[in-house]
Amino acid sequence: MELYDAMQRRRDTRAEFTGAAVDDEVLRRVLAAAHSAPSVGMSQPWDFVLVRDAQALAAFAGHVASERDEFASSLDGERAETFSRIKIEGIRESGLGVVVGYDPTRGGPNVLGRHAIADAGLYSVCLAIQNLWLAATAEGLGVGWVSFYREEFLRELVSMPEHVRPVAWLCLGEVANVPTVPDLERFGWRHRSPLESVLHAERWGEQVEPVQS
Amino acid sequence: MELYDAMQRRRDTRAEFTGAAVDDEVLRRVLAAAHSAPSVGMSQPWDFVLVRDAQALAAFAGHVASERDEFASSLDGERAETFSRIKIEGIRESGLGVVVGYDPTRGGPNVLGRHAIADAGLYSVCLAIQNLWLAATAEGLGVGWVSFYREEFLRELVSMPEHVRPVAWLCLGEVANVPTVPDLERFGWRHRSPLESVLHAERWGEQVEPVQS
Repeated sequence: MELYDAMQRRRDTRAEFTGAAVDDEVLRRVLAAAHSAPSVGMSQPWDFVLVRDAQALAAFAGHVASERDEFASSLDGERAETFSRIKIEGIRESGLGVVVGYDPTRGGPNVLGRHAIADAGLYSVCLAIQNLWLAATAEGLGVGWVSFYREEFLRELVSMPEHVRPVAWLCLGEVANVPTVPDLERFGWRHRSPLESVLHAERWGEQVEPVQS
Repeated sequence: MELYDAMQRRRDTRAEFTGAAVDDEVLRRVLAAAHSAPSVGMSQPWDFVLVRDAQALAAFAGHVASERDEFASSLDGERAETFSRIKIEGIRESGLGVVVGYDPTRGGPNVLGRHAIADAGLYSVCLAIQNLWLAATAEGLGVGWVSFYREEFLRELVSMPEHVRPVAWLCLGEVANVPTVPDLERFGWRHRSPLESVLHAERWGEQVEPVQS
């Protein structure tokens, strides 16, 4: 698939998982794409734990449900009403969770480029996640990033050591009929902003002239 | 360009910038790719400051040089020798710096999916950076992520408000002869690890069976 097509078709998938098993070769290409991401000082500081065990999926889904309730209780009126219609995870339906971790010890004692910015390694892990997401899209798979969880819960669930930080739970699986519009836009939660609203010329707050095309 | 080709050709560019100006339409496609990235609760919490002013580029390059010296002084023997041969930035040569910021206020008061994980917005910004990087690769441009700087210095340089966090300085520009092997590998700093070394089955530390192909 063309790069720009993959970017445009990529969605955060919740309701569309079919539950069919992902082919091993396809899964390997998707994980290899993640592993080919850039990383600070070439530290490649990521880990991927593949969770398929039904009990583990159910335990995580239960934890996420309670975190969903906590967020819901912070909302009022229209926000509470709109949120109540939004499906936030497809943990059991996808049948596969990819738990992404950040291991700061992977780059050795002197990580080139991390001495001034401690979070640079964490940033690298996110680049790998975006590669995974785009590759999955090109392979016809869906990805849903779940972030309604406490890191400690997830660390214990997959036995991550203390020094490894859980960064994401990605539901990954076969999908049917992925929508073209993001769920949060379809359900009226948020709308995409125009490009100009995030661009600045030379200094923050100074407008970039729109390109005439 | 095909997605997997873009991922494979993508390099962290240091020495190969030609200094030629980037076409406005091309730049817009690259920035639009960044802006189409997924974000927690659709908050789109990123900012891009386009820096071309020669004085600003020189000021940043000077700051980075001093941070480079600081890192160099922490190294001994072979590491110091190897590092001394590595070019770490093309700030002036590229002619364009894209300063990427994270603005946590962009998503409104209730960011869906950020209540349990404060850094989820920061993660979104990194996904946008990877989209930018891949799009630039597909457009034949080079990107070099510079992380030898102090966030406070960069914030002041581009007048970012206190609540916006600088996440990256990306050198962006026309390039000639981008190498196929990462600089850090070519110069013997680090080597890429096998995919199996970052995969785990069900729980951290449990081996994934290699796919036979």
